[in-house]
Amino acid sequence: MTQTQEKPTNPIPQPQKNQKKNQSQSQSSSSSRSGMKLIVPLQGVVQGRGGLLLGSLIPCALFYFLQFYLKRRRSNHNPSSPSSSPTLLPRSSSRSNLSSRGSISRVRVSKLASILSKPDDSLYYLGLDRVSQDPFHSLLNPNGIIQLGLSDNKLCLDLIEKWLVKNLEGSVMGNGDINLSINGIAPYQPFHGLNELKIALADFMHQVMGGSVEFDPSNMVLTSGATPAIEILSFCLADHGNAFLVPTPYYPGFDRDVRWRPGIDLIPVHCRSTDNFNLNITALEQAFSQARKRGVKVRGIIISNPSNPVGNIMTPDMLFSLLDFAEDKNIHIIADEVFAGSTYGSEEFVSIAEVLDSEYVDKSRVHIIYGLSKDLSIAGFRVGVIYSYNKTVLDAAKKMSRFSSISAPTQRLVTSMLSDTRFIQEYIETNRNRIRQVRDEFVDSLTKLGIKCAKSSAGMFCWADMSGLIKPYSEKGELELWEKFMTVAKINITPGSACHCIEPGWFRICFTTISFEEIPLVIERIRKVVESCKSSN
Amino acid sequence: MTQTQEKPTNPIPQPQKNQKKNQSQSQSSSSSRSGMKLIVPLQGVVQGRGGLLLGSLIPCALFYFLQFYLKRRRSNHNPSSPSSSPTLLPRSSSRSNLSSRGSISRVRVSKLASILSKPDDSLYYLGLDRVSQDPFHSLLNPNGIIQLGLSDNKLCLDLIEKWLVKNLEGSVMGNGDINLSINGIAPYQPFHGLNELKIALADFMHQVMGGSVEFDPSNMVLTSGATPAIEILSFCLADHGNAFLVPTPYYPGFDRDVRWRPGIDLIPVHCRSTDNFNLNITALEQAFSQARKRGVKVRGIIISNPSNPVGNIMTPDMLFSLLDFAEDKNIHIIADEVFAGSTYGSEEFVSIAEVLDSEYVDKSRVHIIYGLSKDLSIAGFRVGVIYSYNKTVLDAAKKMSRFSSISAPTQRLVTSMLSDTRFIQEYIETNRNRIRQVRDEFVDSLTKLGIKCAKSSAGMFCWADMSGLIKPYSEKGELELWEKFMTVAKINITPGSACHCIEPGWFRICFTTISFEEIPLVIERIRKVVESCKSSN
Repeated sequence: MTQTQEKPTNPIPQPQKNQKKNQSQSQSSSSSRSGMKLIVPLQGVVQGRGGLLLGSLIPCALFYFLQFYLKRRRSNHNPSSPSSSPTLLPRSSSRSNLSSRGSISRVRVSKLASILSKPDDSLYYLGLDRVSQDPFHSLLNPNGIIQLGLSDNKLCLDLIEKWLVKNLEGSVMGNGDINLSINGIAPYQPFHGLNELKIALADFMHQVMGGSVEFDPSNMVLTSGATPAIEILSFCLADHGNAFLVPTPYYPGFDRDVRWRPGIDLIPVHCRSTDNFNLNITALEQAFSQARKRGVKVRGIIISNPSNPVGNIMTPDMLFSLLDFAEDKNIHIIADEVFAGSTYGSEEFVSIAEVLDSEYVDKSRVHIIYGLSKDLSIAGFRVGVIYSYNKTVLDAAKKMSRFSSISAPTQRLVTSMLSDTRFIQEYIETNRNRIRQVRDEFVDSLTKLGIKCAKSSAGMFCWADMSGLIKPYSEKGELELWEKFMTVAKINITPGSACHCIEPGWFRICFTTISFEEIPLVIERIRKVVESCKSSN
Repeated sequence: MTQTQEKPTNPIPQPQKNQKKNQSQSQSSSSSRSGMKLIVPLQGVVQGRGGLLLGSLIPCALFYFLQFYLKRRRSNHNPSSPSSSPTLLPRSSSRSNLSSRGSISRVRVSKLASILSKPDDSLYYLGLDRVSQDPFHSLLNPNGIIQLGLSDNKLCLDLIEKWLVKNLEGSVMGNGDINLSINGIAPYQPFHGLNELKIALADFMHQVMGGSVEFDPSNMVLTSGATPAIEILSFCLADHGNAFLVPTPYYPGFDRDVRWRPGIDLIPVHCRSTDNFNLNITALEQAFSQARKRGVKVRGIIISNPSNPVGNIMTPDMLFSLLDFAEDKNIHIIADEVFAGSTYGSEEFVSIAEVLDSEYVDKSRVHIIYGLSKDLSIAGFRVGVIYSYNKTVLDAAKKMSRFSSISAPTQRLVTSMLSDTRFIQEYIETNRNRIRQVRDEFVDSLTKLGIKCAKSSAGMFCWADMSGLIKPYSEKGELELWEKFMTVAKINITPGSACHCIEPGWFRICFTTISFEEIPLVIERIRKVVESCKSSN
């Protein structure tokens, strides 16, 4: 009997789909209505009193006649009919109308597209979206949402602009042989980056990292930003279903870059406020062995150093321990060093490249991510670098770089900018000073409001402890506070949960998207939330 | 007994790996040699006369002592020793030397990276590589290899250059509000493209495609070239292990864009010279049903129209049939239309978008690829477009576009260029005339050598039948002829096998990489090969 009941229900969705289709054709909407008149009593027969015979034969016959009827109606709308739009293409041969006998169901997309097409559930992206709908502007939209959720550095745009105005034309088109220059930008160029830019970048990285480590341009693959650099590295280092360890709190973008298309899992290694969120090798060991027990293949560890979102810097000792750990487990290290030049504290940044220079270690497991979005504040230019000591990885990454290559005019422009040593020196110094100035003022003001920040030495953000303001002390309380900041204070900040922080109540606040002069305004808005929290507690 | 034989062999590879590592450290290479002295007699014991006890206990004990010995030697190389380089970082805590007790085997990369890091076996890439090692230059390297294997259009670079010289600065930096302009290029911009560029591109596509079809900027996702556009679409439309149908001969790049990272298979649908390599729906049906029988899920069909490498154009009737086929099978259509504006024949190009306008079909299965590398000859600028009628696909593609986004200065530049209607009109016309002129002369000259080309109306190449010159009539013969062109004539062309052509002896020859004046030189080089083939036959 189950068969009897199941079988006849099959044909019913089909005409309904046909109807849907026909409804969009205004003139044939009446046919769908008449179709419904047929189907409703039919359902009664099928689901209730019919038997095997009635339940299977009658609907099939009716379905056939219905299709025949709809097909006839449809063929009245041939493209050459006067009702169609004047630009329509005529069709010389008769239409086979395959569509009416085949499946007209909605075409399927990939599983990945189904997931990605849904609205983001991470508050990191949700916050960015909300800002884009109502962005603050001191004159045009003074009540808009202030963006403190994106580490965009706007403190030195005046320097970049001044340089561009002066040098743009010469740097893109060349000042010498005209024919040479157009051939250097319009036709295809090496996808993994122009050699000139690699050399200039190696110099810039050397300079930014304190002049104590050299970079070899032949170890570089250039990409359109650090984001594809991380993705390409992920594709190179691990297979779908493998995993990377990642200390928390971590940059929300890693989930996207590593999980989405490479299909690699991220295993959080929780760091604590009591350690100022510094990495702990024992926690790493535990996470590794637990993953192994679950049958997960761990293929690497991703660190961001200087840390995003905390802003602290790894000590050389910690880097040595990490190398030992990676060598012991025979896994890779991906070191995201995009904030290397944006230091302001007394602690000096040490690149993992420098530690490698001093140790007899297998360098082939170490890969550095760098880019110009942070330290040179040209995120819109999309310039990223994979720096690897592994020839196999470099060879594979070079091939993948054609999916993420930088436009040649931009490469020429950036090469020229980086090669202007006087400008670069001035830029690095001014940028550090301005970051320090804004950061000190901002963190001081927060302290006065009773909000303490984690100790930090780099980055464009502070990692603020607002656990005293949340109620309940849980992720729920954190999200409610985030919502309050968004709606009451109209500022977008990144909640710790978006960074997989295990302790609730921490927030990343970027301060380089505003000017020094705008700090009081932001602090005033934060004060409102603090006071409302205190009064309700 | 099998267990006895297997078990003791395990420890042996370990010390060998240790040796490898130590050999790179010059001072400890003697340790590896002494290690070998221990291992060789040990192997005799284990594999032959030992038993369970000797075979498992002795090697384990020896292995332990060997590791202990190597560890001691290794610890002599502590980083603070005077032999290390002067910039070395000191290590404050004692080194744990985890590495010497763990696996020191070479770190694994992903399967994909292993495959991609190997040299290309496709003659398409091999040819491009060879040119890059010895590129022809009329003055500097007149005996170098002439590039006819890449569809780069160099015929109108003078127009592009003239425009750039005049407009570069104003288009990137803006002529008005200075503060507005730096904010429009340096900070993060929408990853899927600036709206201004989408509008300009929609206009350009409308113009290039004969003015008979409108494009909606909101259906666009911009990418850094058509290559990532195809890859992103692949990720959106099918899952790993699914397949797309693709008529042959096809552009060798599809294999890379669809197979590498999305992991989608390409099922060739063979077209024949007797049909001038036009698509045949019966062949499509057969390929589809055969794939289904093998349990492969076909999720779409990729066409290039105008065809690369043949240069023919699909008739509206064929497009109608394709739509019927796709609707019948409920699959997607990806139409690569990057050569839409590079037409020279009497046949008019009709975009699939135009056919959709005139038919009551489900547009959500149709996706168009476009870009400016071919029709505007700015391949180095990396500007590509996904044009889709499917909201889910657009939403997902927008998110993926952050891995392939175009730099903002380039977007501003191109927006300005495309908005210069007088320039664009002049460019399109001049470009078509020049392509036609070079193509006619080139094909005529080939005909005089006895080489006929397929009928074509678009593109930057001809599809030449050299089957009369190959011996044996097979892929082997074709490859030998390719090698002869490379070494005797010193020209790089693309053999049909690289395009999955089922008939041997066809070659794609790009003619827009040379100037009109260089045609006699190229033809002379080809003549050499033709004559040598004829004399040897």
